[in-house]
Amino acid sequence: MCQLLGMNCNVPTDIVFSFTGFAMRGGRTDTHQDGWGIAFFEGAGVRHFVDHQPAVDSPIADLIKKYPIKSKNVIAHIRKATQGEVNLENCHPFVRELWGKYWVFAHNGDLKEFHPQLDGAYRPVGTTDSERAFCYILQTLRRRFGDCCPGRDELRPVLAALVAEIAAHGTFNMMLSSGGELWAHCSTNLHYLVRQYPFETALLSDEDVKVDFSEVTTPNDRVAVIVTQPLTTNEQWTAFAQGELKLFIDGLPQG
Amino acid sequence: MCQLLGMNCNVPTDIVFSFTGFAMRGGRTDTHQDGWGIAFFEGAGVRHFVDHQPAVDSPIADLIKKYPIKSKNVIAHIRKATQGEVNLENCHPFVRELWGKYWVFAHNGDLKEFHPQLDGAYRPVGTTDSERAFCYILQTLRRRFGDCCPGRDELRPVLAALVAEIAAHGTFNMMLSSGGELWAHCSTNLHYLVRQYPFETALLSDEDVKVDFSEVTTPNDRVAVIVTQPLTTNEQWTAFAQGELKLFIDGLPQG
Repeated sequence: MCQLLGMNCNVPTDIVFSFTGFAMRGGRTDTHQDGWGIAFFEGAGVRHFVDHQPAVDSPIADLIKKYPIKSKNVIAHIRKATQGEVNLENCHPFVRELWGKYWVFAHNGDLKEFHPQLDGAYRPVGTTDSERAFCYILQTLRRRFGDCCPGRDELRPVLAALVAEIAAHGTFNMMLSSGGELWAHCSTNLHYLVRQYPFETALLSDEDVKVDFSEVTTPNDRVAVIVTQPLTTNEQWTAFAQGELKLFIDGLPQG
Repeated sequence: MCQLLGMNCNVPTDIVFSFTGFAMRGGRTDTHQDGWGIAFFEGAGVRHFVDHQPAVDSPIADLIKKYPIKSKNVIAHIRKATQGEVNLENCHPFVRELWGKYWVFAHNGDLKEFHPQLDGAYRPVGTTDSERAFCYILQTLRRRFGDCCPGRDELRPVLAALVAEIAAHGTFNMMLSSGGELWAHCSTNLHYLVRQYPFETALLSDEDVKVDFSEVTTPNDRVAVIVTQPLTTNEQWTAFAQGELKLFIDGLPQG
C-alpha cells in the first residue's frame, strides 16, 4: 500500500511542515520506500516532482522540505509498490490535461482485475492499476460532459458513481484536483483536519518537529489537510467513512 | 524570444555542465528572465521542472546544477515572454501524453495569427502560441496515425510538413521528444555538436567553468547537444539550416 497527503487552502500556503512528517514515512518511520511524488498547483500551472528514490534519501524531497512553495492545492504520495515496477513512470501523482486544465491524481490501494476499456484519449505510460484508474476517470468525464467542464454540483454524482465503480475492484483511497478544489475518496483509510483561527501549535508524530501556526498565519487563513494516517499527535483528526467522497474548497469540506 | 537547450545521448548522461552555462542566460549573461523549465526522460517517465522565477535566482535551477540527474533525452528552455503572461502555466517545456508515451516540447520564436482549430483532444492550459502549437502537433499526429505510434520513418514526413505549416506563421525553433529520440526544427537559430571519443576539455562561454569530459566518460559515450547559441568557446558547433528538421538518436544526427 501507499500513503496519501493532500492540502486544500483558501490562500496559498506552504506544505513544508506536513511534508516533513509525511516524507519520514518514505523509508524511516514506515516502509513506503518505492518512490514518492508531489504536485503543487500554482495558478493554472502545476509543479510536479516525482522520484523513485525513497523520500527520506531524495535530494528533491530535501528541497521540498526547505523551499516553501505556496499553493492552494497540493497532492503528495509515497509508494509501496503492489502493482507495477519501481520506476519513475509508476510514481504518483499523475498529471494529465482535460478541458484545458491540469488534473492531478494519486491513489492508495490495490485494484484487482481492473482492466477498463480505454479508447485512447488517455493511455497509461506506466504499469500501475492507479494510472489505469486515472485514465479511466478522465476518459469517462470527457465522454459524459464532452467539451464543457461541468460545475461541481453536476460533476459530483458522476464522479461518485465512477469512484464507486472502481472501488468495487479493491481499495481505492484517492485524491483528485484540477486546481480549484480537492476531491478525496476513502475506501479504507483517510483522515482530515481543518486548521483555522485561532491557530495553535502542532506536533508532528513522525519527527520531533513542532510549529506554532499562529506565528505564520493570518486570522483569515484556512487549511484542510487530508492524509492516510494523522500527521500530528495533539490535534483532532476526523476519519472519513468507508465509501465517502469528500469535496474540499478553500480549506473547507463541502456539505 | 527564448532560448532552447536539448541533449540526446546513447547512455544516460547528466546535463549539469551545459545547464550551468545555459541558466546564466536566464537573467545574467542574457535577458531571458521570464521563467525557465527542463524535462528529463528517465525510462518512460519524465522529471519535469518549471519555474517562473529567473533561472539565475531559482532554488530549483540551483538543485539541477548540483544534482546530476542522468537522462538520454533532455529539453530545457529559458523564457523571454513575447506572448502570454509570466506565470507557471506558460513556462516551457510542456508535457502531454500520446500513444502511451509522454511527449515533451519547447519552442523559441513567435507565431503570428496562429489559431489552429483544436478538437479538444489537447487543449492549452496557458496562453502561449507555443502550447497552442504543441497541442496542434499532437492532435494532428493522433488524427493522422490513430491509435498506433508510427515508426520514425513514417513520422518524419508528417512532422516535417506540420512544422513547416506552423513555421509559416513566424519563427518556430523547437524541440520535441517522446523519450527515445529528439526532433529539432530550426527557423532562424539552432546549433549542435556531438561529443564522443576522444573527449576533450570544454570551456563554457557564459561562466568561468570548464570540464575535461575524458575524465567523466567512457570511450563508448556519445552526446549530442543542441542549443540556440553555442555554449562553449573552444568546440566546433554546427549551425542548422533554415527550415531544417533534424532527428537525433543515441547522440547522432540522422540522415
